[in-house]
Amino acid sequence: MHPWIAKRTEHVDSSGIRKVFDLAAKLANPINLSIGQPDFAVPDEIKQAAIQAINDDHNGYSLTQGVPALRERLQAEVDARYGHDDRRVLVTSGTSGALVLALMAMVDPGDEVICFDPYFVMYPALAGMVGGKVVKVDTYPDFHIDLAKVEAAITPRTKAILFNTPANPTGALATADEARGLAELAAKHNVAIISDEIYRQFCYDGDLVSPASYNDQTIVVDGFSKTYGVTGWRLGFMHGPTEVIEKMTMLQQYTFVCAPQPLQWSMLAAMDVDMQPYIDTYRHRRDLLVNGLRDTGYEVAQPGGAFYVFPKAPWGTGSEFVAEAIARELLIIPGNIFSGRDTHFRISYAATEETIERGLEVLRDLAKR
Amino acid sequence: MHPWIAKRTEHVDSSGIRKVFDLAAKLANPINLSIGQPDFAVPDEIKQAAIQAINDDHNGYSLTQGVPALRERLQAEVDARYGHDDRRVLVTSGTSGALVLALMAMVDPGDEVICFDPYFVMYPALAGMVGGKVVKVDTYPDFHIDLAKVEAAITPRTKAILFNTPANPTGALATADEARGLAELAAKHNVAIISDEIYRQFCYDGDLVSPASYNDQTIVVDGFSKTYGVTGWRLGFMHGPTEVIEKMTMLQQYTFVCAPQPLQWSMLAAMDVDMQPYIDTYRHRRDLLVNGLRDTGYEVAQPGGAFYVFPKAPWGTGSEFVAEAIARELLIIPGNIFSGRDTHFRISYAATEETIERGLEVLRDLAKR
Ligand SMILES: Cc1ncc(COP(=O)(O)O)c(C=O)c1O
Ligand SMILES: Cc1ncc(COP(=O)(O)O)c(C=O)c1O
Repeated sequence: MHPWIAKRTEHVDSSGIRKVFDLAAKLANPINLSIGQPDFAVPDEIKQAAIQAINDDHNGYSLTQGVPALRERLQAEVDARYGHDDRRVLVTSGTSGALVLALMAMVDPGDEVICFDPYFVMYPALAGMVGGKVVKVDTYPDFHIDLAKVEAAITPRTKAILFNTPANPTGALATADEARGLAELAAKHNVAIISDEIYRQFCYDGDLVSPASYNDQTIVVDGFSKTYGVTGWRLGFMHGPTEVIEKMTMLQQYTFVCAPQPLQWSMLAAMDVDMQPYIDTYRHRRDLLVNGLRDTGYEVAQPGGAFYVFPKAPWGTGSEFVAEAIARELLIIPGNIFSGRDTHFRISYAATEETIERGLEVLRDLAKR
Repeated sequence: MHPWIAKRTEHVDSSGIRKVFDLAAKLANPINLSIGQPDFAVPDEIKQAAIQAINDDHNGYSLTQGVPALRERLQAEVDARYGHDDRRVLVTSGTSGALVLALMAMVDPGDEVICFDPYFVMYPALAGMVGGKVVKVDTYPDFHIDLAKVEAAITPRTKAILFNTPANPTGALATADEARGLAELAAKHNVAIISDEIYRQFCYDGDLVSPASYNDQTIVVDGFSKTYGVTGWRLGFMHGPTEVIEKMTMLQQYTFVCAPQPLQWSMLAAMDVDMQPYIDTYRHRRDLLVNGLRDTGYEVAQPGGAFYVFPKAPWGTGSEFVAEAIARELLIIPGNIFSGRDTHFRISYAATEETIERGLEVLRDLAKR
């Protein structure tokens, strides 16, 4: 290894996912059920608002905390939702940006960070990059949270719990009881909950209940990327106790500087767009996929949100199964990318019904092997 | 302090600059010579290209290394300029993004990072945030580099030298001899040079000579922000040895994810825009400001680039002098924001001639006190 490379880079090994993409690169026309972003185009009102902002010369640095009109609107929404005395909003460069700031602002080397396994890939990587020790709490097979396991995992070094609902990669939507239990546990032990609610809009059987409803110290990371199909615009936001958010704001000043200014303006228009028809489409696809997998040999935990299903491989390891799927032109992601286990795989239904149907055909066939 | 806040946040105290802005906030119509970004509007071709990309649905995640057409064009330019066998380009989220990645990828806790004093504010903050120990090398009074001082500062723990030319806040343009000397010193001691060339286009008396011309291991951080007036678009790029850039690419995947996609596309159009007329305007303003300060009691090191002049305060500390200037409606920045010393102040000439003239009037008057 090059002598200049720092130790923290060992936490960002991406060779697992690269192996999948190397396999996939050989496919001319794959059945792609691997995508982590919506497949709809950005609604026209939002595009127009971004264009307007560019033409209106909103192209310089914004305040690091965000364009005031956007930050204030988000603040009003958050205040209305939670009614906390001391909850401050910060506009960030994507939800990833919010996660980076949260971990940098709170995790000292040696601090422990609890992640639920399966987890979003970024969580252990980011926690490790800032010197944190990742403590995994298992949620197989139904991907719901066992509070006793969480409490057993908490030690005097625990700084934060990284929680995500609806979840990537499982699609699991936590119940109000889970959110409340986690919130109370965190309060009892004075550890931070970082609640990643980026898939908030993608809930199909009831709304997301945030731990922030039960614990006013919760750090919520939220976003626009998935809701409006603007993953490449690098916009997100977060909120939490003022003193903590202020530190994150200062860290942002020296790292991300600000979220892209003209695109920030367009989020004001976005917040007026009714995305429900898009969500209904995604619900329909979820049902198509989950029903299509019924009685075909797959163990599937019912997903209540996001746009992922995380079935157990019917034979072999998750990676072996996915290699075979890719050999049949079906692109899915092995579970070991998101987990200490290599038993499951992720299907994304951010794809057309036709693609989902073609994928189902291959999956049914594969299960029989 | 809130018990959750991590120690690394102590490196991002922004109270110094906030004090200045608090003073300034009371001014209704200040003579603003404090701005760190160009005052021209983004050229229309560039706006149009961004708008086109939005309308063409280039709104999702891009490859983390950048939109291929842009990355390849930058790569071709860099290859033509340096002809190095092993120099890889990465598109980043601003030049700040490139700096963050460089320091995260290379600096282990306890490593030493050499900065030239005066320095761009981000350098000691970022070096400290990743656990590095900042070693300052003085460049007063002419802001040129004394190689003997640099060599004396190098120890077995030195990992990198953070170099910036033309410089913020001094405007100093390093000579070819300085660039070569630094390059050779770095090679001799096997330390990295991180060369911040964001003001590359803003050179008035001869081109920037990069240490990369003499040392093929140089990490160059470069950008679009200042060149095209797109500071709020969060676009930059960097290049260096492939193995090191690959680590930075992986870090980017987990932090910034990618630079804003539609805005990346517009940089292809930007690279065809002739910015020379803008540069000529800035040269003219520099001359106006520097000539206007001649024989008025200010000690001014001739600036060769960027859009800053860094004179010595004619009386008092830099902060005392600036407080008085602000009391007279002139907004400038005290040197201690950028330095261990509190003796100078920064004037930005990213402002109209009229504003510069008004500023000069106040400055001439202040010198007489
Ligand atoms: C759970 C989760 N959090 C955060 C992100 C990152 O979002 P953004 O693109 O807004 O940075 C993703 C993207 O896949 C995600 O799935
Ligand atoms: C020397 C220097 N480097 C980097 C930056 C940050 O540039 P960007 O806006 O592209 O992140 C600045 C901005 O003021 C600067 O002066």
